[in-house]
Amino acid sequence: MFELAELGHTLSKAAYKKRTPSLRTELLEVQNKLADENFPVLILISGVDGGGKGEIINLLNEWMDPRGIQTHAFDVPSEDELKRPPHWRYWMGLPGNGQIGIFIGSWYSEPIAQTITDKNDFDGLDAKLTHVKNIERELADDGMLIIKCWIHMSKGRQRAKLKAYQKDPNTKWRVTKKDLKHLKLYDKFASIAERVIRVTSTGHCPWLIVDGSDIKYSSITVGEHIRDRINAHIKLGHQETLPQQDKIKIVKKEISLLKSLDLDKKLSKAQYNKQLEKYQGRLNLLAREARQKNVTSTLVFEGWDAAGKGGAIRRITHALDARQYRVIPVAAPTDEEKAHHYLWRFWRHVPKAGQITIYDRSWYGRVLVERVEKFATKDEWFRAYKEINDFEEELTEAGVLINKFWLHINKDEQERRFKEREQISYKKHKITEEDYRNRKMWDLYEAAVDDMVTRTSTEFAPWHLIPANDKRFARIEVLKKYCAALEKRLG
Amino acid sequence: MFELAELGHTLSKAAYKKRTPSLRTELLEVQNKLADENFPVLILISGVDGGGKGEIINLLNEWMDPRGIQTHAFDVPSEDELKRPPHWRYWMGLPGNGQIGIFIGSWYSEPIAQTITDKNDFDGLDAKLTHVKNIERELADDGMLIIKCWIHMSKGRQRAKLKAYQKDPNTKWRVTKKDLKHLKLYDKFASIAERVIRVTSTGHCPWLIVDGSDIKYSSITVGEHIRDRINAHIKLGHQETLPQQDKIKIVKKEISLLKSLDLDKKLSKAQYNKQLEKYQGRLNLLAREARQKNVTSTLVFEGWDAAGKGGAIRRITHALDARQYRVIPVAAPTDEEKAHHYLWRFWRHVPKAGQITIYDRSWYGRVLVERVEKFATKDEWFRAYKEINDFEEELTEAGVLINKFWLHINKDEQERRFKEREQISYKKHKITEEDYRNRKMWDLYEAAVDDMVTRTSTEFAPWHLIPANDKRFARIEVLKKYCAALEKRLG
Repeated sequence: MFELAELGHTLSKAAYKKRTPSLRTELLEVQNKLADENFPVLILISGVDGGGKGEIINLLNEWMDPRGIQTHAFDVPSEDELKRPPHWRYWMGLPGNGQIGIFIGSWYSEPIAQTITDKNDFDGLDAKLTHVKNIERELADDGMLIIKCWIHMSKGRQRAKLKAYQKDPNTKWRVTKKDLKHLKLYDKFASIAERVIRVTSTGHCPWLIVDGSDIKYSSITVGEHIRDRINAHIKLGHQETLPQQDKIKIVKKEISLLKSLDLDKKLSKAQYNKQLEKYQGRLNLLAREARQKNVTSTLVFEGWDAAGKGGAIRRITHALDARQYRVIPVAAPTDEEKAHHYLWRFWRHVPKAGQITIYDRSWYGRVLVERVEKFATKDEWFRAYKEINDFEEELTEAGVLINKFWLHINKDEQERRFKEREQISYKKHKITEEDYRNRKMWDLYEAAVDDMVTRTSTEFAPWHLIPANDKRFARIEVLKKYCAALEKRLG
Repeated sequence: MFELAELGHTLSKAAYKKRTPSLRTELLEVQNKLADENFPVLILISGVDGGGKGEIINLLNEWMDPRGIQTHAFDVPSEDELKRPPHWRYWMGLPGNGQIGIFIGSWYSEPIAQTITDKNDFDGLDAKLTHVKNIERELADDGMLIIKCWIHMSKGRQRAKLKAYQKDPNTKWRVTKKDLKHLKLYDKFASIAERVIRVTSTGHCPWLIVDGSDIKYSSITVGEHIRDRINAHIKLGHQETLPQQDKIKIVKKEISLLKSLDLDKKLSKAQYNKQLEKYQGRLNLLAREARQKNVTSTLVFEGWDAAGKGGAIRRITHALDARQYRVIPVAAPTDEEKAHHYLWRFWRHVPKAGQITIYDRSWYGRVLVERVEKFATKDEWFRAYKEINDFEEELTEAGVLINKFWLHINKDEQERRFKEREQISYKKHKITEEDYRNRKMWDLYEAAVDDMVTRTSTEFAPWHLIPANDKRFARIEVLKKYCAALEKRLG
């Protein structure tokens, strides 16, 4: 795979000097065009040590307008980063629409490093690369252009370069112990790199392998590649605006999951009070244990308007210490959020280890309101099922306990509650015209909920369908389910 | 000071039950009104251990609409937080307009804790409190309503409460070693608290001292206080919209700082190349040493359009490793940024220890473009001088080395450069109609620069006025100044 990149490509000083000004102009022009486009560009610079990754990035920054570029260097994760899923820090560094982000060190670094040091076989590596491919696929689906450059250098050249550096007192500092250690591991590194490049060179995110032996050659090659890829993506974007919705078929189901729920379930006030005390007490103890053991929770609340999400959430938070939980009300995205993949704004709030995050509405908006109201195309919301499953799986692997609640009421009960709320001054603000409008879409929402539960209720992140015509029953049910999940996890 | 709060105020269960529903309604109404207002509300809950701070916050969250409240519990700072100035984490948690933020633990926690344990006298405490007062003043000036509640409890009651908890196996866990240690330090804590409250009870941010012996009493008292303060602030806001600009007098100066610069300073190409190599080499070594020693840098670039900020920045970054620096181009604020104090968006990018952050335009926009174009009122930009000095002092105290550059060219040179840029395709995008429009405001900008330099060039964060008619001279000058500052710091 690296044969071509070991030929020792060079560019004469004259050729470099001749090509640089025009490339610079073209890159600036491309950046100008990009600023008006509705997609971000992510450039991953990976490769062998001493291949000149840092120099290439310095040149890119020099050639282009730094106002549209953010370079992120990901090294050993910090304490705060370790408290979150491994990919959190990469999500936080993603560029927004019209922007270019450059990553040195990326989601490839850890899989490669671990495979080298842990003496893992390729099974572990492949599993990690599947994650990586999923992320790249999801970002690319959302319009992001991902440009991956692998800077290669043969073992001989790497050794020669390090030796040359060591000889010169001015450059001696550049050779670290880590570099020398890596040189010894060169062969293993190369075989892992080859596999990584092969497995993750997909049609939408191919790798460019660049010979790193001459910085003039490698920087011009990377620069031209970036120019061409962005130009091509801009053209492609304008061609592919036709909706591809026909290829998705959602099978109409005769029986609705929601209709099968028994909405007559009830608790008397006495039963409720007794059980509320019992389960809140239990939750209080469990949550403290969870904090001690760094068990993180994410609770998702979805449901019809007026189904009692807020009330159920408050019955949970009442049992918790305010220092441990956070309620995230999901409203319209801000302009920074709109400029990113729709999951970005949820990654922002991913809880630290030991915390409890409660979402009052969530990322499921993508397959509920955005589907029903046609804010998202069919393509977009359909692929969201997989994106959401991947996201939740990643949280789970980082130790997050996920529980999702759909609070279900029927149409009559909703109407009764709307009217009731209009009578109570401090609840009046909860009822808007939109709520009445949403009622007209009831059947569409019901179908969307069916699909959502079918496609996203997983072993690691189950949906709990809660009959909620009786508020008391629903609140206790939610407490019970969460307690049971915590008990199971804490053992 | 605490006499009244030690009387043991209680509220009967009946009275509590009677007052809660109406208070809840009123709080929700207040929240509704607040959502349309152009200011945020920050609630600080401080006080003695065991005073029920957590319970009060739980109740506030239960009574109000959690969609408009964010509770932040600040405990021991994390590794990442320690890498930034102490107040960074508080800034990041500040609510936006129309929102309520509740802080348990706040900028008061560290000053108090340190005074107790370090056996400091009150001089150290007072210096810290001056900082705190400055922040609160600045936030309040920007419209933020700050509500500070001190939950008090007498030593006897605190002891009794802890003992009662310890006796009951269900509540035993609540008594930690820290609580018992704090009980021993009660008297010292109380005397420090008294001083803190006295010194920081300002007209715009007074403390409310609440007797914490009965949660029913304290929660209702805090809830009613919040209701009343927000209502009053909404009323006040509408009264105080008259500009108070007359009280500010900027003295017209005869001699301009900028006009006194010698713009004829020049370097030949040969001199330039030689010095560029020399200073970039030196900077490279210094920057590496700075990284090892965790010396953080902030460079601010301001100057006329086409003064060569971008070019000077690139001559610096060229000497640096892309992993160590970040260029922050300051453009229009996003909607999240607009909903906060204007310094918030700069706090967001405050560098971690050992990093170099380069601002291409900066917080000085407040006293330059916002002053000249009248985007900020005279009150706003005038008080910004102090706010900026405070901000930079805080960075300095956290070990950040600040250097600020004004690149100065004259009007003729600017015109020449505009025309030149229009000829070079990849620089063409840099010239817009706005640039020509800005030229008409030259004199106003000149006066603004004079004031800015006079009021914000401090020992710890000096302004360097760089004659930049000759680009080569300017670039070398900037490199020299930054090298000299680094050398001085590194010793």
